[in-house]
Amino acid sequence: MICSCGNEAFYYQRYSNKYLCKECFKKDVEKRAKKVLGKEVIRNDVKIGIGISGGKDSLAMAYILKKLFNHIPNAELICFFVDEGIEGFREKAKEYIKDFCKEQGLELKVIKFRDEIGHTLDEIVKNNYLTKLNIGKPCSFCGVVRRYLLNKYALKEGCDYLAIGHNLDDFCQTILMNYVEGNIKNIIQFGKEFEGEGFVKRIKPLKLIPEDEVRLYADIVNIKYQKEPCPYSSLSYRHRMKKVIEVLEEDKPGVKFSILRGYEKLLKYIDVKEEVKKCKICGYPCSGDICKVCSWLIKLKEI
Amino acid sequence: MICSCGNEAFYYQRYSNKYLCKECFKKDVEKRAKKVLGKEVIRNDVKIGIGISGGKDSLAMAYILKKLFNHIPNAELICFFVDEGIEGFREKAKEYIKDFCKEQGLELKVIKFRDEIGHTLDEIVKNNYLTKLNIGKPCSFCGVVRRYLLNKYALKEGCDYLAIGHNLDDFCQTILMNYVEGNIKNIIQFGKEFEGEGFVKRIKPLKLIPEDEVRLYADIVNIKYQKEPCPYSSLSYRHRMKKVIEVLEEDKPGVKFSILRGYEKLLKYIDVKEEVKKCKICGYPCSGDICKVCSWLIKLKEI
Repeated sequence: MICSCGNEAFYYQRYSNKYLCKECFKKDVEKRAKKVLGKEVIRNDVKIGIGISGGKDSLAMAYILKKLFNHIPNAELICFFVDEGIEGFREKAKEYIKDFCKEQGLELKVIKFRDEIGHTLDEIVKNNYLTKLNIGKPCSFCGVVRRYLLNKYALKEGCDYLAIGHNLDDFCQTILMNYVEGNIKNIIQFGKEFEGEGFVKRIKPLKLIPEDEVRLYADIVNIKYQKEPCPYSSLSYRHRMKKVIEVLEEDKPGVKFSILRGYEKLLKYIDVKEEVKKCKICGYPCSGDICKVCSWLIKLKEI
Repeated sequence: MICSCGNEAFYYQRYSNKYLCKECFKKDVEKRAKKVLGKEVIRNDVKIGIGISGGKDSLAMAYILKKLFNHIPNAELICFFVDEGIEGFREKAKEYIKDFCKEQGLELKVIKFRDEIGHTLDEIVKNNYLTKLNIGKPCSFCGVVRRYLLNKYALKEGCDYLAIGHNLDDFCQTILMNYVEGNIKNIIQFGKEFEGEGFVKRIKPLKLIPEDEVRLYADIVNIKYQKEPCPYSSLSYRHRMKKVIEVLEEDKPGVKFSILRGYEKLLKYIDVKEEVKKCKICGYPCSGDICKVCSWLIKLKEI
């Protein structure tokens, strides 16, 4: 099959019914990332923090951002890698990341759980601290702390935005899980990012790119990334939702886009004004007096 | 296994982790219908129109309503059966319905498409009127007209409410389809019934009862109902959604209830004030000057 540019196609994009050659596929991916960011983000003098984990999504995102900002005067990019301290897993990620950043000429800042909260994730789990903190899964602890630390460093480095590598499938899975679980608070909060003092606005350049295409892109541009999943990850329910979305996509190509669009339209009708306070300890925006991370850290010190 | 009443159980209700005997199962179903209706509906001097099709849902609903209103002073029930004129299908339904209403001592009013709109559904389809009306599927025409006629007769008979036999699965399928299709208008309208002059408020007594339990209930109380589906029904996408919900329910029993609860919570946050006009021809509430059914009837006369 032939791409519209005349070259031989290597990929059939079912939802658009287009055959694409490698070059046009790359352009298509990059164009969509550019569209999501818009002129508000892609501008002179902007500083962007990039959260990278070593997986395909975050490295492909960093690669695309580097490309998009290459010729923007005075734009700065800085990568943040949170090392949670997971033996046999994070060291490998760090290698991929160091090589990638060196190759791309990207500044890298490594943020360690041990330095920041006094414990590695391994220690938290092994010492049974999660039970003491009344937390079910390692991910529930790790996710919150990671998010907190990325914001802290993006703020410290004076970033205007913090880029997170969620792809279209991640979005759809989260949206549907929240719908199905009837989790209204999450439905509202997931879409509406906090804005305001103490919080670096998050951007999601891969929002309109399906997971398969992110992987394909990463492979085409020769990114070396970590393929094994985190040993603590328990993706069962998310994985089930992935299957469900695949069934729906098979039936109606493009359903992922409509899930996202529908959700974003829905959010426009939802008007919830929540008072945002500041954590009395660290200043992080939160709904109570003390943020979740600080309250955990207090409890961890008491143990 | 033993029911909590001490009798032998015949049914395991997975989502509640309860074993139920026949009597307790029946009571459980009826209790849930009663809960949905509440004291606003179950009261003296109320008149309820019941839309029945001859299937398990509408007949089980009519049976339950008869039971719930049996001892309510001056409460009136009247059944409406819309005969769309579908050869080899509706005659059979009519037999089931006549027998049922006679047995239950329920008043029955038969409303015919031929009398009301001048054509049977068969004629509409065979004469290719759907294409001329720019309607894709027979169901899109039939559903709107049926809904219109049920309201018309409920209004004519002075009903306070019109009962519709949607079960929990119907609700979940519709909700998820609207989410997945990003159909915001439907998401909002499906949950928020029109209220006001010209429109009889709809009630859905089976809302909290899964389809399997409606079927089981109908079988237990010996209702004879039509099992074959409408020859025009094309349930492919709804059927796919049914499968999806089954997969989710298998994984997390009770997911149907959480889909419904989540949706109803969500609606509370959505504030859309839509101006409701009255059809200039028939007075039916609508968003434009002329309602859909009247505009179709005008076009049909022109053909």
